[in-house]
Amino acid sequence: MTDTNTRRRTRGGGGAARRAERTAVSVETARYIERNIPNFEILTPEALEIIETNAETVLAEIGVNFVNNPGALKLWQDAGAEIIGERVRIPRGLARKLCATAPSRFTQHARNPARNVEIGGNTLVCAPVYGPPFVRDLDGGRRYATMEDFRKFVKLGYMSKWLHHSGGTVCEPTDVPVNKRHLDMLLAHMTLSDKPFMGSVTDPSRAQDSVEMCEILFGKQFVQENTVMTSLINVNSPLTFDDVMMGALEVYARNNQACIVSPFIVGGAMAPVSVAGTLTQVLAEVLAGIAYSQLVRPGAPVIFGAFVTSIDMNSGAPTFGTPEATQILSGAGQLARRMGLPFRSGGGLCASKLPDAQAAYESANTLNAALLGGVNFMLHSCGWLEGGLVSSFEKFVMDADQLGVLHKLAEGVAVDQNAQAMEAIAEVGPGGHYLGCEHTQANFKSAFWRSEVFDYKPFETWDEEGSRDTQTLASKRVAYQLANYQQPALDPEIASALEAYVADKKASMPDAFM
Amino acid sequence: MTDTNTRRRTRGGGGAARRAERTAVSVETARYIERNIPNFEILTPEALEIIETNAETVLAEIGVNFVNNPGALKLWQDAGAEIIGERVRIPRGLARKLCATAPSRFTQHARNPARNVEIGGNTLVCAPVYGPPFVRDLDGGRRYATMEDFRKFVKLGYMSKWLHHSGGTVCEPTDVPVNKRHLDMLLAHMTLSDKPFMGSVTDPSRAQDSVEMCEILFGKQFVQENTVMTSLINVNSPLTFDDVMMGALEVYARNNQACIVSPFIVGGAMAPVSVAGTLTQVLAEVLAGIAYSQLVRPGAPVIFGAFVTSIDMNSGAPTFGTPEATQILSGAGQLARRMGLPFRSGGGLCASKLPDAQAAYESANTLNAALLGGVNFMLHSCGWLEGGLVSSFEKFVMDADQLGVLHKLAEGVAVDQNAQAMEAIAEVGPGGHYLGCEHTQANFKSAFWRSEVFDYKPFETWDEEGSRDTQTLASKRVAYQLANYQQPALDPEIASALEAYVADKKASMPDAFM
Repeated sequence: MTDTNTRRRTRGGGGAARRAERTAVSVETARYIERNIPNFEILTPEALEIIETNAETVLAEIGVNFVNNPGALKLWQDAGAEIIGERVRIPRGLARKLCATAPSRFTQHARNPARNVEIGGNTLVCAPVYGPPFVRDLDGGRRYATMEDFRKFVKLGYMSKWLHHSGGTVCEPTDVPVNKRHLDMLLAHMTLSDKPFMGSVTDPSRAQDSVEMCEILFGKQFVQENTVMTSLINVNSPLTFDDVMMGALEVYARNNQACIVSPFIVGGAMAPVSVAGTLTQVLAEVLAGIAYSQLVRPGAPVIFGAFVTSIDMNSGAPTFGTPEATQILSGAGQLARRMGLPFRSGGGLCASKLPDAQAAYESANTLNAALLGGVNFMLHSCGWLEGGLVSSFEKFVMDADQLGVLHKLAEGVAVDQNAQAMEAIAEVGPGGHYLGCEHTQANFKSAFWRSEVFDYKPFETWDEEGSRDTQTLASKRVAYQLANYQQPALDPEIASALEAYVADKKASMPDAFM
Repeated sequence: MTDTNTRRRTRGGGGAARRAERTAVSVETARYIERNIPNFEILTPEALEIIETNAETVLAEIGVNFVNNPGALKLWQDAGAEIIGERVRIPRGLARKLCATAPSRFTQHARNPARNVEIGGNTLVCAPVYGPPFVRDLDGGRRYATMEDFRKFVKLGYMSKWLHHSGGTVCEPTDVPVNKRHLDMLLAHMTLSDKPFMGSVTDPSRAQDSVEMCEILFGKQFVQENTVMTSLINVNSPLTFDDVMMGALEVYARNNQACIVSPFIVGGAMAPVSVAGTLTQVLAEVLAGIAYSQLVRPGAPVIFGAFVTSIDMNSGAPTFGTPEATQILSGAGQLARRMGLPFRSGGGLCASKLPDAQAAYESANTLNAALLGGVNFMLHSCGWLEGGLVSSFEKFVMDADQLGVLHKLAEGVAVDQNAQAMEAIAEVGPGGHYLGCEHTQANFKSAFWRSEVFDYKPFETWDEEGSRDTQTLASKRVAYQLANYQQPALDPEIASALEAYVADKKASMPDAFM
């Protein structure tokens, strides 16, 4: 199912809706995935009960730390937790009970309502890579990321048919001061794309800036009444909630904006070296984090996150696309669904330094696991390289192309009269072929998914054209997409107001690089 | 679960068992996979019933052709089918009833009993690429395959920890006459490896040669009483059974040797362009083919095969790792299990010309689909390139390495006391780390699967070592494996008898290259 960028905003409210002008350029973007297939569930009911019981034991007997956050300790104490120093011990059942006010699904609005996404239930929303300080491409190699790189990735995301979300820190623009770069990043998402995006989490004040910029883009009342950002709140595993991340969460929850509460775990380092032990800790951390979000504002939209990799015990390096990572993803999805919460995990994760076969095996393993494991929000869907140190331009378009596989697979198998094709089988009969038959002619255009990056040509043609590998083909696609990019129209008043906000904020503080 | 090549044969019977001497060289080979995870099933019960009903309609109303095969027509007539010319129309329910005598699982014996494989139920047996006329490697590029290449692939298969089966035509040795190459190929499998293997199917007489060579290797009585070959019988889709393939099947079935009855379908060309239509035709073909094997010899071991690719409607080229191929694989697995038959599909299938990212995405999609879709026998597990035109040395070791992912994933998630790791979580507590804790020390060696091909080193080290991509790393592994290969010991009398058989057979006929 795809839709195109229409010229008029057909629904949604607020000032932005009235003031926005729609672009006439048609950029095809698929609707978020709605699964018509079952989830793959690796844990037995008995295993789930053991893990859930153990997670409650962890919360009650070991507890979690809320660091530098007296306000959080007060909220927890009032809710019935035991507080000793910064340690919060949560009686059995309390965290889960608090989590019950979180919605099971929510709409994240985009400035183009056709790009709104539903997060939860049977949906899967794909967002790009988040966080790398480096970029890589075929021509320039590996280098520190700049704001110009950032803008290119936002443009590529806007141009990607199977990508539903513009993401957040698609790379770290290291040429902009740390305390100001969130402003440029948000401005890029808001003006260069019309897909939904993420807010800043590196400081509570930057989360507040994100809210204020959204109020300019969408209108103040619209932001109060709707979710327009989904932001990434990492837990400092094991069992620690720092004041920076919790400060950002508090800003977003109070403003009814969505947070992903996501343990960030390299297995064997930040969690036990076993799958069941890791899932226990993940569940305890998510229970505590989401319960806290509901203490801040009952009903605030949240996502059960699980970013878990395995580790190469020879080198200590994180590894991706491994069987243990798949098992944890699958199990965490089951735990999330039993809580009735949207689930975030997966992505095109890999350890490889290049967009080569290693990168693709690792990424494909994770992408498949994410679709089948019931992920609702997939950060790092495309562009991730080298364990998250590098945003790769070529891998961005390679992964983004593979997201098309997930879309089609998720549709399930039609068995209507046309799909049964009994007339075709009778028409062709033993020994015939189907290429020319009526059923094939009527259906071939939509019958089979087709890559827009890969090479399907005969060997001889491919050889004559230079024997190009996937990286080379992807490099050409990157150039093509950027050359054909056209900025989606935005009400000039809104654009000016956003620019003025950014300029004022930047002028109000000295540069900081920490 | 792995075992090592032990010095003594501990069970199994026949002359070979008594006469064989075991090698003292330890080559670690994993036991075939036994799944402890659920199957992913894409079809609803209603969809399954529609497809099953339609397949019976195809057999009853359209029928199948048995070409140049009066004996087959006679058997079908006696069984109650309607014969007109070469067309066999099979009354509803008859084929399924005949299939009921086929075993739901069987043991294929290897000359080293530690390498025996169980095919059916919850098992997955991995066999290498089958059929390509070309080979490719990093140094030599793409070229016609030779018998020397063939031997190298058999050696690589023997050295591959996660590969259970030596396969059949790992490449076509084009430097040996067509009517003699099966002899050299079988001799290579029998003498250079001790894993189970496949027989020749290119002519009934060559199937008979395969049986006779097995009688030398295993002993005549042992072969009569046990399955020692699994051979690939392709159906000429749509709905056609030719005399060459059926002639080979007849030889094997009469000798109680296993056949994979496998529609070979490029969707949209040899079957309808829809998933449900293709599954209908696959089921009809398998029902007819397996029913026929049971007419030849009730109880003969067989496998429900489904080799189905999608097609690029722009170029007509077959495509791999696509969502439709995954849907068909998953649905065919369900149909096979409802018949109580072992299931063959999947593999490291790809269209790419190089072992690059395209190859890896496509292959990983298929490998994952095969594990989760309940495949019991996976031909083309490793080494397949360019739509099956090329056996790639580098891809062989890359894919074979990825089979380790499937092994670990299939084990499922342990939830015993050790796996729960509650003491570790308590010991480490909030803010600590697990690298040094007792639980990690006790478990880290087996906790996480680790690639033996991929690079997990820090960027700087990798860069200093030459920024090698996966193909380059794999090329080194190929060289290492071949350099360290040691032939498994075989009773010299048996080896001599096999060589004499091959020499005599070759001398008995002129070379033929068609």
